[in-house]
Amino acid sequence: MKRAIGIDLGGTAIKGTIMSEDGVCSHTTRVPTEATQGGQRVLENILSLIDQLIKKSGLAPSDFVGIGFGTPGFVDEDGTILGGAENLPGWKGTQVYAPIKERFGFKALGANDVTAVALAELKYGAGRGVNNIVCMALGTGLGGGIVTSGKLYKGTHGMAGEVGHIMVEPDGYPCTCGRKGCVERYASATGIVHMAIEFSKAAAGSEITPFAEIACKNPDEITSKMVYEYVAKSDAIALKVHNKMCNMLGRAAGTLIDILSPDRIILGGGVMMAGGIIIDTVKQYTKQYCWPAIFERCEIVPAKLSEDAGVIGAASLALE
Amino acid sequence: MKRAIGIDLGGTAIKGTIMSEDGVCSHTTRVPTEATQGGQRVLENILSLIDQLIKKSGLAPSDFVGIGFGTPGFVDEDGTILGGAENLPGWKGTQVYAPIKERFGFKALGANDVTAVALAELKYGAGRGVNNIVCMALGTGLGGGIVTSGKLYKGTHGMAGEVGHIMVEPDGYPCTCGRKGCVERYASATGIVHMAIEFSKAAAGSEITPFAEIACKNPDEITSKMVYEYVAKSDAIALKVHNKMCNMLGRAAGTLIDILSPDRIILGGGVMMAGGIIIDTVKQYTKQYCWPAIFERCEIVPAKLSEDAGVIGAASLALE
Repeated sequence: MKRAIGIDLGGTAIKGTIMSEDGVCSHTTRVPTEATQGGQRVLENILSLIDQLIKKSGLAPSDFVGIGFGTPGFVDEDGTILGGAENLPGWKGTQVYAPIKERFGFKALGANDVTAVALAELKYGAGRGVNNIVCMALGTGLGGGIVTSGKLYKGTHGMAGEVGHIMVEPDGYPCTCGRKGCVERYASATGIVHMAIEFSKAAAGSEITPFAEIACKNPDEITSKMVYEYVAKSDAIALKVHNKMCNMLGRAAGTLIDILSPDRIILGGGVMMAGGIIIDTVKQYTKQYCWPAIFERCEIVPAKLSEDAGVIGAASLALE
Repeated sequence: MKRAIGIDLGGTAIKGTIMSEDGVCSHTTRVPTEATQGGQRVLENILSLIDQLIKKSGLAPSDFVGIGFGTPGFVDEDGTILGGAENLPGWKGTQVYAPIKERFGFKALGANDVTAVALAELKYGAGRGVNNIVCMALGTGLGGGIVTSGKLYKGTHGMAGEVGHIMVEPDGYPCTCGRKGCVERYASATGIVHMAIEFSKAAAGSEITPFAEIACKNPDEITSKMVYEYVAKSDAIALKVHNKMCNMLGRAAGTLIDILSPDRIILGGGVMMAGGIIIDTVKQYTKQYCWPAIFERCEIVPAKLSEDAGVIGAASLALE
């Protein structure tokens, strides 16, 4: 059976695994990213992790078809990081494929981390059995990954799937990208917390709720998880945040449906731990923002793979 | 050299051609659609046109690899029209592949008409040399076609590329689809004329311009071509229409760029006869609505193929 190494590069840790064609992972290992020490150090840590994985497996480099990696930001066709990875200073411009080829003799293939997750969901998760999917990962930000005709779609420069910056509200909240109204400002942990504090402050005095009271007192302690604990208690302000989030996410999902007519939109990431209420509400809103005949043919479902999706998708890149 | 028949189904005429692999068309012929007489009559007219083309060519059906057709609306994988072709009553539900196979013995492949145009532009027009493009056709409505990784992307049900209904203005103009603010309401001949009349009426009395005067007197005579004649004369109201159109089209284009990171967005259709001013202004707006690094890697260009794009794309479907 063919096997590959999968590497998932995060802001604090690099995770690696050895995966066989049937999706079974072994020897999963983490090392620190040491992002603040620059791109070359991050690359060295990746190389050292690959080395550890090969040694742990007791196999030779020639027993692997290659290594796949998922990274924040964009990877060009030749394996150079093009940017979009703000939490990894100095990572932009790093050439990744050549040093891996040189050290281990096998090919490397990289993709945006959420793009890799989309591939994992397609092959082993919520995208099984269909050919066209879009993954949206609601984490600190909002990432995306697209599969068309059964293949990962990365675009010529590895930049496709930048769904977090779909503009959903003209003159909406300012975004870190310099524009306004990007869906990421609403549909992400950061966006939810920001709205929670803003809506709570606006309610102070008049329509204050238990949640709003806490948010006004200790805004720094608010998390998206906490917002959803109060959504479960039907707190009016928490519900307002939830509805705004789902409305804006529905706008982006509707646009994706009109453009790509995917079989499934898969919602994942930490925010989705809140469960079915997000899926249900997003469906209601999405329906309002796309062509009915296309909407009817698209399911909106939660992701199935958990924290291992990143390394599974990365290894799948190499196995494709 | 391989050859195929290409059929472009329109509301008033069906156009057919014989095309060889090098893109050369011959025996191009038109017959009336007779759309009001129902789907079966339209199908009969298509079959009769194929018959005429084969006879004119002096070849046998076995000399063709097959026939491709472009149609308004959506074609399912098995060749059934799924709808979205409002100007062809009764066409929805028609099964097209089987009768062609039965009568001529060759395979048929259908796609949305603008999707077929995208393929034509990819192979013989403004999309040559790249792998990822989006075509937007500004005609009566706004159609779209997507090519990913060098292949036409139609989605599982032939419905992908419904770019005309990307929502660009929440609570914007009501659309025929029942929703509001679809980009088609602004970036199409219909949308331009509607805005021209509305803006002219609003200006009456105060900021009236030569164009607005005509539009207020004879609203039924306004065309998008006329609007652009006055744009060329720097008429303030015509320019206002132009800017609103390009702004809204830029929002949709920016969204497409963020999602698909295409190498080129190709703008075609009758409205684009107005020339470079639309391309230039759309570029300015698009830049405001997408991620800069992706925008930099995407060209916005006019379509190169003229009225033959439909049949060329259709024949290309069969030749793929």
